[in-house]
Amino acid sequence: MAIELFNNGRHLCLMFDDLVDDLSNSAVQSNQFMIVDNGHGALLDPGGNMTYNALLAEMGNYFPPKNLEYILASHADPDIIASVNKWMIHSDCKVLISNLWVRFVPHFCSVGNAEGRVEGIPDEGLDIPLGSCALKAVPAHFMHSEGNFQFYDPVSKILFTGDMGASIVSHKEADTPVADFQTHIPLMEGFHRRYMVSNKVCRYWVHMVRQLDVESIVPQHGRMFKGKEMVNQFLDWIETLPCGVDLLTQENYRLP
Amino acid sequence: MAIELFNNGRHLCLMFDDLVDDLSNSAVQSNQFMIVDNGHGALLDPGGNMTYNALLAEMGNYFPPKNLEYILASHADPDIIASVNKWMIHSDCKVLISNLWVRFVPHFCSVGNAEGRVEGIPDEGLDIPLGSCALKAVPAHFMHSEGNFQFYDPVSKILFTGDMGASIVSHKEADTPVADFQTHIPLMEGFHRRYMVSNKVCRYWVHMVRQLDVESIVPQHGRMFKGKEMVNQFLDWIETLPCGVDLLTQENYRLP
Repeated sequence: MAIELFNNGRHLCLMFDDLVDDLSNSAVQSNQFMIVDNGHGALLDPGGNMTYNALLAEMGNYFPPKNLEYILASHADPDIIASVNKWMIHSDCKVLISNLWVRFVPHFCSVGNAEGRVEGIPDEGLDIPLGSCALKAVPAHFMHSEGNFQFYDPVSKILFTGDMGASIVSHKEADTPVADFQTHIPLMEGFHRRYMVSNKVCRYWVHMVRQLDVESIVPQHGRMFKGKEMVNQFLDWIETLPCGVDLLTQENYRLP
Repeated sequence: MAIELFNNGRHLCLMFDDLVDDLSNSAVQSNQFMIVDNGHGALLDPGGNMTYNALLAEMGNYFPPKNLEYILASHADPDIIASVNKWMIHSDCKVLISNLWVRFVPHFCSVGNAEGRVEGIPDEGLDIPLGSCALKAVPAHFMHSEGNFQFYDPVSKILFTGDMGASIVSHKEADTPVADFQTHIPLMEGFHRRYMVSNKVCRYWVHMVRQLDVESIVPQHGRMFKGKEMVNQFLDWIETLPCGVDLLTQENYRLP
């Protein structure tokens, strides 16, 4: 079921947290997002093959799916855009993704389907017009993907952070915002230590995000951080977390 | 057309370099590999949707495709295994991939298709029995993917390195081994500087690989390095290359 993150009658942010069959423990839970501004629509990280039918049906409540303008992809992992071939066939959307992944997206697609429809976001980011607003593609390289963007919505003041801030919970728990930061840490610490590439880039990212007016951080897995106090607790935590290559030694590179 | 990398009558290594339609410049050229030992077969990084039909047809020349034993995936990018759902449907293969990506592979698949068929390779690597030999999954984490393996074939002494050693050429050039290392550098330098995560892990990797008996390094994009002298030139080069987060500063993390 769609979760309304923001709605002022002209601008709407929806989250979907239960479209992945994660109960068998085989697929990791993931959130998908739709932003609609004055009847113009974009999907953020629409997900893999399992999510397509339900998203298509929901979309029809807001605008004709054929008119979908953008798929905004934080990076090129399967839980982010493995469904992209279906969207290419059934809508006229463009896919916006880091320049680093433009030539990788067609590998998801049937021959010719992606031709001329995948646009690269330059490393420094981009303003993306949608209806009467402009979303911001904000640099988040190496968090975790080499070419990685997050999407900031200046109307709702939500920063959609992709894997940054992700927590590993079932889809029944993902719709509840983080209530107590300390008890939430164990649900995200292992993931961030292994999948985020280095504390150095996390620090740069935190410094940048502190300059944005962020009301909520909404990741692509698990629970959101709602309100400036909770957002700041997350920023303070990730700013000092050793992760990725920081933690590796020659011991991790030995012949089996 | 299949390129025979090794064949002693019982053990065969094949490379495919022209299954991706890269001429339009939309999809990056990629190589796929098949190893057959005494009638038992594995695919290495079989690729995206474009490669499936041709690989299936080639496979039939060596064993019934239904009997494919493994898909060995260096990581979870679309050019590596976006075709996995088709292989799940039309063969009984298992997919071996880093523990980090086991719960991401099902996002490529129709519901239930991956159930019980994706096996995790632990961070320290694994011996993988195939026919009468055993391939080695060798740690290559953060080169570029967080959970990343290369596959070493002790019979042919080929190290299949995934993105490590990749060069950006068209499929018409990929079948020619590197002849002059210095003139080859410009075809791989930009890629390695941006997609490889840090020189620190490259150094660990080189130290490990020097302990293996490697006759060829065969990457997933572009040309191979054939013979110990050329292999060593590559190792010497990547051992000192600054890359990834080494090169980033706060300037790379600014609001657009």
